[in-house]
Amino acid sequence: MSKIIQKSRRKFIKNAALVAVAPTILSMEQQKKSTIIHHVFFWLKEPGEANAKELIKGLQTLKAIPQVKKLLVGVPASTEKRDVVDNSFHVSELMYFDSVKDQDAYQVHPVHQAFVDQYSHLWERVVVYDMVTEG
Amino acid sequence: MSKIIQKSRRKFIKNAALVAVAPTILSMEQQKKSTIIHHVFFWLKEPGEANAKELIKGLQTLKAIPQVKKLLVGVPASTEKRDVVDNSFHVSELMYFDSVKDQDAYQVHPVHQAFVDQYSHLWERVVVYDMVTEG
Repeated sequence: MSKIIQKSRRKFIKNAALVAVAPTILSMEQQKKSTIIHHVFFWLKEPGEANAKELIKGLQTLKAIPQVKKLLVGVPASTEKRDVVDNSFHVSELMYFDSVKDQDAYQVHPVHQAFVDQYSHLWERVVVYDMVTEG
Repeated sequence: MSKIIQKSRRKFIKNAALVAVAPTILSMEQQKKSTIIHHVFFWLKEPGEANAKELIKGLQTLKAIPQVKKLLVGVPASTEKRDVVDNSFHVSELMYFDSVKDQDAYQVHPVHQAFVDQYSHLWERVVVYDMVTEG
């Protein structure tokens, strides 16, 4: 093989490697930017401060699950009453996950299962919203 | 007035002042720790990627409002379909505020009003949940 061909071949291989790696870098970058936001609203069977506190205590145990990157637990805020505002829920949890895969792992994690076993008698209704952040 | 009565009176005033101040300190402490989470879900009049992108572009303008401490905008995540999961919305925004007062200021801020004027033709339904974090 002539030196020119060798050099050109090396250059081709180098470029091909760059082209192959580029989408991976891009996809990692995209993955890094987006977050899965998991927001759950609970309506208690027997509303009241004691049951709300009990459920909040239970929700705090979910922090122990490694896939849960952030956990915020709360109650309806006393914001202005407007037609579009649903403040009928009693307790709410907001979680951040790095990926859908992580949320799948969370759903079957023993700490989550134990929470459901121990606290699900408290609520009569649950609504879940999962969003993936953009940009 | 005798010295004993004067002393007892001063003590009473001092204690009364402490009792009056204590709830304020407690309430300041609580305010410091808690965050208002404002989560809005939009259902588009004409669903589709172009309208979703347009609305997301509009929502990003709300970052300019100083009371908005954090803004996350997204679309439904491809998490497991379960009865409790509502993935029928098209676009969602999640905001953090330091207080209910800040959220009131946000509602009437010119940038928010301009967003409503310019983009509300895109959606047919909005649901808002406001929660205040505990602990």
